[in-house]
Amino acid sequence: MERRVTITGDLFIGQSRARTSRLFRAVDPATGDLLEPDFSAAGADEVKRACALAAAAFPAYAATDLETRARFLEAIADNIMGLGDALLDRAHIESGLPIARLTGERARTVGQLRLFAAEVRDGGWLSIRIDPAMPDRQPLPRPDLRLRKVPLGPVAVFGASNFPLAFSVAGGDTASALAAGCPVVVKGHPAHPGTSELVARAIAGAVAAAGLPEGVFSLLNGASNELGGALVADPRIAAVGFTGSRGGGTALMRIAAERPAPIPVYAEMSAINPVLLMPHALEARAEALGAGYVASLTMGVGQFCTNPGLVLAIDSPALDRFTAAAAEALGQAPAGVMLTPGIHQAFGQGVEALAAHPRVTTVARGLAGEGPHHGRAALFSISAEDFEGDHDIAQEVFGASSVLVRCRDAATLARVVEGLEGQLTATLHFTAEDEPMVAGLLPALETKAGRILANGWPTGVEVSHAMVHGGPYPATSDGRSTSVGTLAIDRFLRPVCYQDFPDSLLPPVLRDGGQAGLPHRLDGKHTR
Amino acid sequence: MERRVTITGDLFIGQSRARTSRLFRAVDPATGDLLEPDFSAAGADEVKRACALAAAAFPAYAATDLETRARFLEAIADNIMGLGDALLDRAHIESGLPIARLTGERARTVGQLRLFAAEVRDGGWLSIRIDPAMPDRQPLPRPDLRLRKVPLGPVAVFGASNFPLAFSVAGGDTASALAAGCPVVVKGHPAHPGTSELVARAIAGAVAAAGLPEGVFSLLNGASNELGGALVADPRIAAVGFTGSRGGGTALMRIAAERPAPIPVYAEMSAINPVLLMPHALEARAEALGAGYVASLTMGVGQFCTNPGLVLAIDSPALDRFTAAAAEALGQAPAGVMLTPGIHQAFGQGVEALAAHPRVTTVARGLAGEGPHHGRAALFSISAEDFEGDHDIAQEVFGASSVLVRCRDAATLARVVEGLEGQLTATLHFTAEDEPMVAGLLPALETKAGRILANGWPTGVEVSHAMVHGGPYPATSDGRSTSVGTLAIDRFLRPVCYQDFPDSLLPPVLRDGGQAGLPHRLDGKHTR
Repeated sequence: MERRVTITGDLFIGQSRARTSRLFRAVDPATGDLLEPDFSAAGADEVKRACALAAAAFPAYAATDLETRARFLEAIADNIMGLGDALLDRAHIESGLPIARLTGERARTVGQLRLFAAEVRDGGWLSIRIDPAMPDRQPLPRPDLRLRKVPLGPVAVFGASNFPLAFSVAGGDTASALAAGCPVVVKGHPAHPGTSELVARAIAGAVAAAGLPEGVFSLLNGASNELGGALVADPRIAAVGFTGSRGGGTALMRIAAERPAPIPVYAEMSAINPVLLMPHALEARAEALGAGYVASLTMGVGQFCTNPGLVLAIDSPALDRFTAAAAEALGQAPAGVMLTPGIHQAFGQGVEALAAHPRVTTVARGLAGEGPHHGRAALFSISAEDFEGDHDIAQEVFGASSVLVRCRDAATLARVVEGLEGQLTATLHFTAEDEPMVAGLLPALETKAGRILANGWPTGVEVSHAMVHGGPYPATSDGRSTSVGTLAIDRFLRPVCYQDFPDSLLPPVLRDGGQAGLPHRLDGKHTR
Repeated sequence: MERRVTITGDLFIGQSRARTSRLFRAVDPATGDLLEPDFSAAGADEVKRACALAAAAFPAYAATDLETRARFLEAIADNIMGLGDALLDRAHIESGLPIARLTGERARTVGQLRLFAAEVRDGGWLSIRIDPAMPDRQPLPRPDLRLRKVPLGPVAVFGASNFPLAFSVAGGDTASALAAGCPVVVKGHPAHPGTSELVARAIAGAVAAAGLPEGVFSLLNGASNELGGALVADPRIAAVGFTGSRGGGTALMRIAAERPAPIPVYAEMSAINPVLLMPHALEARAEALGAGYVASLTMGVGQFCTNPGLVLAIDSPALDRFTAAAAEALGQAPAGVMLTPGIHQAFGQGVEALAAHPRVTTVARGLAGEGPHHGRAALFSISAEDFEGDHDIAQEVFGASSVLVRCRDAATLARVVEGLEGQLTATLHFTAEDEPMVAGLLPALETKAGRILANGWPTGVEVSHAMVHGGPYPATSDGRSTSVGTLAIDRFLRPVCYQDFPDSLLPPVLRDGGQAGLPHRLDGKHTR
């Protein structure tokens, strides 16, 4: 499986490799050392060229039949697997993530591409609706109306640092945009440009093998905000997928809103993913909850969007037992290499600010690390009243840092929930005796989170049909969407209605009989 | 059927009637006279009260079962019919629209409410997806995941001037938002406050009869931009539906984007609805096309969002025949009362600017009117090159004004199409011989318009399942949506995933067996 590969540092403008005079290197976060080779950073010219190619590719790619598009996605998956261990090795050295984790992330990435291939074939996302003509209707005849969803146009995808495979060059945004029929221009994350290059090679190879127009995919590397801004501002870009910080996401939202023609931005930004411990559950299993919580908190050095950064519970001896168990587990949690020096620095600053806060108590710290960019876990506690009095405490500290909010009573806990911002997830631990209290909290939690978990932990996001990885602002820029799971395709589509068209000019899926096997609505009735 | 009704001029804050010291009156556009009675204009206090009631009503209304919600929509329809001729009479005097047109518009309005009632019962819009647990899956078990869409929250609806019933207080935005489970706060259009009050009475009566929380519906009247801005900025408002001018829509978009938590705005704003006349169709039926075009252009004094404001064709003797036929028909087109003095004034200014433009030729004017606010139809022509050189000519002039763009050849016509902004509709007239040319234009038209018509006219928007009344910016603020037809409900929904919840705490439609009869996906498979 393993093959020796050379990383060139080039940009991918369609099928062309491009170099610039602006060079940068990746950093090995485990050592702080710069990594070979030099990578070209894209500038305004490369943005324009990639976007022009994407726009030129759009009509032909949008018109591909479902089977062609599905096989293209599968070929990308095959090509990624074909990169062998070289991909894992490079991702490991660029991200500090363990090989075992990256092996799992690769499986998730190719599984996601194959799931979207199956979804493309399913065709339900086309939302086909046919209202046949009623020429004799009174007082007016009804025309023949046929609706399908079409792709929006070229999509700009921003690779995320924390999933160098699954949320990066061939991650969920790219897979769902390509599935929808949109060409993709990726702005690669500067922390893992070698990984990006290898994956780009897999995609570009699949583009060529399928005979698709080269502009279906480009990769632009670079570390500057200007690069991302120029990409979002390009008039040929029709939508944006982003996973990253709140500052970065809101900056892109502003640029997109101020364009002459505004475009949708799907930014997955920040969440503290509250975990609510109900009294009977605490009483019954405080120690197990404490251990489970710390395991979820410290997994992957806490670098998950769904990391449980907030625990809400009512003060009680059982909560003291939970806290003691969590403190003990955290005290033994090893430090781990964080993704980038910048993320490590921001984590350190966030933790220090909490530790120095006069109303915040440091409950426990994890083991100190040995390398230059090791993240050391941290657990804090605060009273509900003090938490409500200082909104900064509810800001995400990306990494294994979490705050326990001790509530006087159930009413206080409910009030704290009401005051929370939008979240990716909300988690409840409860027993049957707690159900009335849970039922009282659920309506508020439904307005706050995209996914609500019972007696589990929010880390671990299944890629499937019923998943929602999204949530009200500021968890994402657009709470009407998910960035994980097959429903993510809907972000890159819009409906078009064809009125009274002859079969010869209709897209094949809207012609008489062209819906065979595809879910659709005929005069409103659900049909296949 | 007819009943005598008194119009009070009050605001509807839930079930309370409110008065303020800021008074205004409607104008009879046929005469310019002020109409009785005085209407209270809402201010910041009334906005706050209505939004607080809407937020308080949201959890209970969102949780109503489908049958309750469907019957509520049907009761609104019944109550509107129960208002009898008094509603038509008031709408006529406030809008200048003929009684026959308003009778049809009322049928459309109540038909739309009943269609959404049926759609609520259908339940496909819930997007139910169930991925059953796989406890034995390797390497990790899969949790039980269940997805449904939930309503966004209270929706602000802005009544439109040009459909005092179908796009106003109980129009498509209100019907689809209520169908989705969202309380509605309407900002009534100041041109028809009496009509708004009567319809508000129908809705508020249905709210009370159904025993729903009073905040499910409020009506705030007023003419100021500040009122609309305060409503969109209110933190309890979760989405906005608007039909009106580009200036008004973009102002609301800005306010919504600058909120601490931005919200979606569905603004249907401006379109010139290009009509493309293919050479063989022109040759075969130039005279009939000219007459049909003028009939569509002048229908309702041109005050439709889908009014054909632009015709594109290749210069030829047949185009001269079309132009002559259109000029002759237009010359006999009577003027009509426009909706408001302001709309009449803006129409006059737009027409005068075109008439005075050095590159624009006035082809024909309609008959002059007799009243103070009669709109006189106008048809202009310009060369493609001059059209492309002056973007102002492509701006909508609301009313019966249209521009014919004469293209040198097919390539010029295609280039003009490429340069168009987003549109609600695009129309093609063609014969079988023209089909290759049409096929070449369709990919571009699909990126420009929400609805594409063959051999018809864009005025007349069917309310059905396959309709799209939307389109890329600036036709609307969000080309991913439609404001007419059952798909409009999707604007006011977002997905929520429930992970590993016991049946007892799941919403009924997600419980085991709770999907009976509802379209859903079980492990991805489409099922009922």
